[in-house]
Amino acid sequence: MEISDLAKQAKAASLHLAALKTDVKNNALIFVAKALIKNTRDIIAANKKDLTEAENSGLAAPLLKRLKFDEGKIKAVVEGIESLIKLEDPVGKTLSARELDKDLHLYQVSCPIGVVGVIFESRPDALVQISTLCLKSDNAVLLKGGSEAENTNKILAEIISQASVSAGLPTGWIQLLQTRQDVKEMLALDDCIDLVVPRGSNEFVRYIMNNTNIPVLGHADGICHVYVDADADIDMAVRIAVDSKCQYVAVCNAAETLLVHEKIAQDFLPKVGKEFEQNEVEIRGCDKTRSIIDAKPASEEDWRTEYLDTILSVKVVEDIDAAIDHINTYGSGHTDAIVTQNETAAAKFLDLVDSADVFWNCSTRFSDGFRYGLGAEVGISTNKIHARGPVGLEGLVIYKWKLLGNGQTAADFSGPNARKFTHKDIDKDCPI
Amino acid sequence: MEISDLAKQAKAASLHLAALKTDVKNNALIFVAKALIKNTRDIIAANKKDLTEAENSGLAAPLLKRLKFDEGKIKAVVEGIESLIKLEDPVGKTLSARELDKDLHLYQVSCPIGVVGVIFESRPDALVQISTLCLKSDNAVLLKGGSEAENTNKILAEIISQASVSAGLPTGWIQLLQTRQDVKEMLALDDCIDLVVPRGSNEFVRYIMNNTNIPVLGHADGICHVYVDADADIDMAVRIAVDSKCQYVAVCNAAETLLVHEKIAQDFLPKVGKEFEQNEVEIRGCDKTRSIIDAKPASEEDWRTEYLDTILSVKVVEDIDAAIDHINTYGSGHTDAIVTQNETAAAKFLDLVDSADVFWNCSTRFSDGFRYGLGAEVGISTNKIHARGPVGLEGLVIYKWKLLGNGQTAADFSGPNARKFTHKDIDKDCPI
Repeated sequence: MEISDLAKQAKAASLHLAALKTDVKNNALIFVAKALIKNTRDIIAANKKDLTEAENSGLAAPLLKRLKFDEGKIKAVVEGIESLIKLEDPVGKTLSARELDKDLHLYQVSCPIGVVGVIFESRPDALVQISTLCLKSDNAVLLKGGSEAENTNKILAEIISQASVSAGLPTGWIQLLQTRQDVKEMLALDDCIDLVVPRGSNEFVRYIMNNTNIPVLGHADGICHVYVDADADIDMAVRIAVDSKCQYVAVCNAAETLLVHEKIAQDFLPKVGKEFEQNEVEIRGCDKTRSIIDAKPASEEDWRTEYLDTILSVKVVEDIDAAIDHINTYGSGHTDAIVTQNETAAAKFLDLVDSADVFWNCSTRFSDGFRYGLGAEVGISTNKIHARGPVGLEGLVIYKWKLLGNGQTAADFSGPNARKFTHKDIDKDCPI
Repeated sequence: MEISDLAKQAKAASLHLAALKTDVKNNALIFVAKALIKNTRDIIAANKKDLTEAENSGLAAPLLKRLKFDEGKIKAVVEGIESLIKLEDPVGKTLSARELDKDLHLYQVSCPIGVVGVIFESRPDALVQISTLCLKSDNAVLLKGGSEAENTNKILAEIISQASVSAGLPTGWIQLLQTRQDVKEMLALDDCIDLVVPRGSNEFVRYIMNNTNIPVLGHADGICHVYVDADADIDMAVRIAVDSKCQYVAVCNAAETLLVHEKIAQDFLPKVGKEFEQNEVEIRGCDKTRSIIDAKPASEEDWRTEYLDTILSVKVVEDIDAAIDHINTYGSGHTDAIVTQNETAAAKFLDLVDSADVFWNCSTRFSDGFRYGLGAEVGISTNKIHARGPVGLEGLVIYKWKLLGNGQTAADFSGPNARKFTHKDIDKDCPI
């Protein structure tokens, strides 16, 4: 089938999803969880096929590990679905309510976005997580996973589709794309698809962002900073800098650049330098840094680089303004932390650093949907509109305005005998 | 100066705007209001120049009226600024607060979007309204008004810039673009500009939407529907249909298509037809409509047309599902109303019609920021993300996540002695 036909099916399904009751959705999630358990053997067989092909084609060991979808992984995604069932329904919430006039009541009510296209990495767990998030939020979804996981994704999508449709969801709400070419075609379908969520390498996300008119939710780079202020507690600063860089280097919320106030550099840098040495982190420093500790020279390019590796660029700055300026110039709007005992400095940093996540006296590694307690995570966004930072279910909904009257016309509110709007906030959920 | 330089200035200013205190902003708005009054004579002189040029070039009378900016208009925009001062500061509001662990508190806090580009029609009042909305929400703004209003816009932008900067706003936060070519260049500056708000004709808005990577907030078409259900009160339906079509035909929330349930068509259409005849509305109907009342035949194209004129397309439908399907196929996601005494039908319509504004038993003409009581209006959005329907100050803000700790690291929460996240909602505003 053509991708445009799949998208049209998804669009048609999405128009029915919007009215699903909470218990129908939760029941469908229960059906999906049961079907996954029931089909464990077939899922593992399909995954073995993918694993064999991947091994034969020489896929690297860490990627093979991500690709593997065994009984433990199935149990984990089923537990995820059980938590999702317990989360409050994000759709149908009254966000504001206002009386415009007697018996003319305006309600702002949350509703699904419509059709979401999600492109994700090789972990098959992602397919289950994303599709069930979309189910819970009444969105239709077009999914494209890593091609290494083709067989696993296919059986998972079939199981989820069949189980949910048998529980009352409209046919076609979940669609699986097969090839890179499919993704390219999907990006042109801005008449059917309302939001694209790309997950994966920065080159890939950047390609998506530059090649579609559909709004994109995601992040390309994660160039995160730790700024150690003049008034920092040095031991705390060492701990936070080391954790931000070393706790897991290959992730988007790991620090790539350390900024140090010149007043504290002489005391702080030797201490943190020793820790980085023990953690085998390569330091690339500015001239001032290199006058205090051993480091390779940093180039302009280093400030713009997301290493995702045991490399850290270090710069000594004149003051907090220079630190903020550096972050707003070279950062990616993801996560940046200040270490200081000075509340005024912290407030300034948190207000003026233009990033999704701004932290005071803690590691950049906390910016994550699970750690934030959002439940499941759709992704991390560095957008400036709609949703920013770790995005939970709320990122998959928007609102509509429901106005309930009893025959009012605009003419009633104009001319010499015009009625006046009362515009009183009311404390009431939308009754229909 | 190059447009990219103006945009960079605005971007630099925006990074300072984010920390302005509420009283600084309100004081700046007072300064702006006073400066407008003080410079009334010069503003009117500049406007006279525009009016003379426009008359000489043969601008139509209604457009000349919109272009005119006299003492009354100045008074009106000053009153608008006074209301804006009274509105709550949209920035710095704590939207959610959660304890992740003891002394590790996460706050979701509203903040400005950054730099907004606004392109608006010939009314110079729009320049004052939009720039003061941006000021109140801490956004820098690039403005481009109608070329007929060039002199008026120039003096207004100068007055607003000088008055606000003298009250403490950063230089360069407000920038005026001069030509269509400037707009074209602006649309390419997605590294500096975070949101574009185009107001004007649908061709123009569509051009903007198709020619930029910057997110766009707005609407191209306003193809609004009134659906008269089988269970409608016929007198009410006549009143609502006539008001939705006739109260002001040239606006985006006027109805363009009337859908009528076949069970009520025989009773309703002759009554409403008489009213439309008196209002000199041309009816273009489907075959069933034409078998009941006098009407020209409607073509497929009519269902997709925003007349903005005294023309109405009318279709008789089999049931509510056909009405919803018609609206979701041909509508523009703007405003659609159902007239019915049946609450179940109303609920279905409001849930399944995929439009920003869905109304029960009232005129489509109510979808408007002033009527909704939003205070000033940025525009009306048919987007599916960020903001939908009439957009007030809230559409100009987003949020950031502020995490306040006392030295916590991700390592504390992993491994055999891992601390557990508490994830408790807390009822507290962000302290910094």
